[in-house]
Amino acid sequence: MRKGIIVLLTDFGEGSIYVGQMKGVILKINPEALLVDLAHDVRRHDVVQGAFLLREAYHFFPEGSIFLCVVDPGVGTERRAVIVRTEDYFFVGPDNGLFYPTAEMSSRRHIVEIEEAKYLVGKVSSTFHGRDIFAPVAAYLSKGVEICEFGRPVESLYKLEIPNPIVRGRAILGRVLFVDGFGNVVTNVKKDDLPEACSVILLQGKNLHQLPLVKSYSHVGEGMPLALFDSFELLEISVNRGDASRYFGLKEGDEVRIRLSC
Amino acid sequence: MRKGIIVLLTDFGEGSIYVGQMKGVILKINPEALLVDLAHDVRRHDVVQGAFLLREAYHFFPEGSIFLCVVDPGVGTERRAVIVRTEDYFFVGPDNGLFYPTAEMSSRRHIVEIEEAKYLVGKVSSTFHGRDIFAPVAAYLSKGVEICEFGRPVESLYKLEIPNPIVRGRAILGRVLFVDGFGNVVTNVKKDDLPEACSVILLQGKNLHQLPLVKSYSHVGEGMPLALFDSFELLEISVNRGDASRYFGLKEGDEVRIRLSC
Amino acid sequence: MRKGIIVLLTDFGEGSIYVGQMKGVILKINPEALLVDLAHDVRRHDVVQGAFLLREAYHFFPEGSIFLCVVDPGVGTERRAVIVRTEDYFFVGPDNGLFYPTAEMSSRRHIVEIEEAKYLVGKVSSTFHGRDIFAPVAAYLSKGVEICEFGRPVESLYKLEIPNPIVRGRAILGRVLFVDGFGNVVTNVKKDDLPEACSVILLQGKNLHQLPLVKSYSHVGEGMPLALFDSFELLEISVNRGDASRYFGLKEGDEVRIRLSC
Repeated sequence: MRKGIIVLLTDFGEGSIYVGQMKGVILKINPEALLVDLAHDVRRHDVVQGAFLLREAYHFFPEGSIFLCVVDPGVGTERRAVIVRTEDYFFVGPDNGLFYPTAEMSSRRHIVEIEEAKYLVGKVSSTFHGRDIFAPVAAYLSKGVEICEFGRPVESLYKLEIPNPIVRGRAILGRVLFVDGFGNVVTNVKKDDLPEACSVILLQGKNLHQLPLVKSYSHVGEGMPLALFDSFELLEISVNRGDASRYFGLKEGDEVRIRLSC
Repeated sequence: MRKGIIVLLTDFGEGSIYVGQMKGVILKINPEALLVDLAHDVRRHDVVQGAFLLREAYHFFPEGSIFLCVVDPGVGTERRAVIVRTEDYFFVGPDNGLFYPTAEMSSRRHIVEIEEAKYLVGKVSSTFHGRDIFAPVAAYLSKGVEICEFGRPVESLYKLEIPNPIVRGRAILGRVLFVDGFGNVVTNVKKDDLPEACSVILLQGKNLHQLPLVKSYSHVGEGMPLALFDSFELLEISVNRGDASRYFGLKEGDEVRIRLSC
Repeated sequence: MRKGIIVLLTDFGEGSIYVGQMKGVILKINPEALLVDLAHDVRRHDVVQGAFLLREAYHFFPEGSIFLCVVDPGVGTERRAVIVRTEDYFFVGPDNGLFYPTAEMSSRRHIVEIEEAKYLVGKVSSTFHGRDIFAPVAAYLSKGVEICEFGRPVESLYKLEIPNPIVRGRAILGRVLFVDGFGNVVTNVKKDDLPEACSVILLQGKNLHQLPLVKSYSHVGEGMPLALFDSFELLEISVNRGDASRYFGLKEGDEVRIRLSC
């Protein structure tokens, strides 16, 4: 197996010089590291969304991958900088909840608070720990430095729960976790939360939108709204070849009131 | 020659978690694969534009490159999943016309419909075949699995023609194929379609815009419109250091009526 | 040390097919090259910003890195195509000032004008030298071709100075160099330019905005404006978890009038 895969997840926006600077720092320490962009379009400062996307994506990567994650609105405050080691992966970033849902998926986890100055960039800024702390630490990890070398073990991570929907029979109060580049609205409603249904009624104020619950986007006509269970296995509200976020005025964090019918 | 170059072309938008998930899937199967982003800003669901950009770009890549292409509005319907092998390259993606213009450039082509479940992700979603079918197939190809292993040969690809302009002497009816990040408007008018000319008259309703036909953007003053043959060797309408798409209200798919003068 | 790191900086926008085409050209010449994106979201045609970002980022990369930089509004005119070799790095791109501030950081620099046709793409377009000249030259450099092979030595680079602020005691006239993806407004005011202060008064017409000068974003309440010295070690105007560019209506190139108080 190839060593030294470092996977980057940030809210910096793709093409950002900040991502580029982090890559430079890593390659200067370990020119053999393999850098992979997971995503850089996490909604700015949205730790919940970052935590959600990480949990949904990390398991697609090879064992041993090091996830360098920076959604860090509290940079420069007392929040800790940590390394999390699970059975199969490493995670480096701020201890602000970003890693909590992913770490919960694993039965074993070792957490270390990053303290050892020799593994950091010479002069640590107070605004960009992605470049000055997390990138060099990920690079040294990729060279095989043991996590105990970076600092003291820590008992637990800052807790962050990705919100669960409230299900009352056929009525569900969910939340928008993510709007993708197509405008598809990904909610927190899992298939298992739902009884069998053939359509989803979306309630918005006094408006009711009845959405057929289908298998894929093209099962309705172009421009028509629909609901489906998507590649996250979550209930997604979509418009075939359209933009559901705009169509329904739904954005990340919004509540979604749903009723099932059949 | 290096083995295992996988080139990604999608309409997911750069920075998308969907691109990241595909890269994870590939690296889990072949950690030695070299992943290269060709473009991820194909206009959403625009198979014609994806087909055009692929045809214009594939030949710049090394022989043996595997193109993993996902512009796939019909995901989850009956459209086939295919591998196309030409003399020099492999293409993996939906059989919706995306590969037709590129395959036409090659005298030999083998097409296989992807059917063999063992080369797919365990549980194939109905909304994201990029991750669950095309990415793992590209990864196994990059490890040297023969295309006949993936399924049955197929006679022909779904046909998609990139529209040609209608030329009547010095009057041309063209179409916008692509608006680049600068707002440059790339039409389907080839140099060979045109008699010698020194300026291009763009007709929009009752308006005439006379554009000098120049060699490069800076041959007119800043903010001035122009026409040139661009790096696709196509007629491009531009504004020096400006945004021609906004200037002329032209977007992808629009008709472009042109007269030549000299 | 790994050979053949090529770092790309352009104003093409991330996800652009133009970036993808350049990568193809490079890999066809040197499939072993390691391609790294520094940034592709330089403001369109903004050579000053490109020069600034390059100067602030190049030193994070390993010695021997080759920077392929394309912010090139004058493509196809008489501006030269150059290679710059400093003690530790190579730079390839247009001689329009892009490399001047970076080259100034180095005591030794060799400059060569690119002339040798055999190192270029067969048919050089007049609109995309990034693909047809700079990419192949960077690729051959990464294979070890000496810079003298590419053309004649040149005495000096086109001069471009990143503007300095005017400081008169506690009154400063600065300029916005960069607005990042968060809307943070990076000015050209260095820490050393300033006497000790505890707050910054931003003057806009008749309006005064008193901004606390803090260590990091979260030292003020959410949605509150602030000033700090950022990871460029420059004075940055920000809004905690907000968008300072929108908040203050400040964009790249704008003047910033500041008074210090304490």
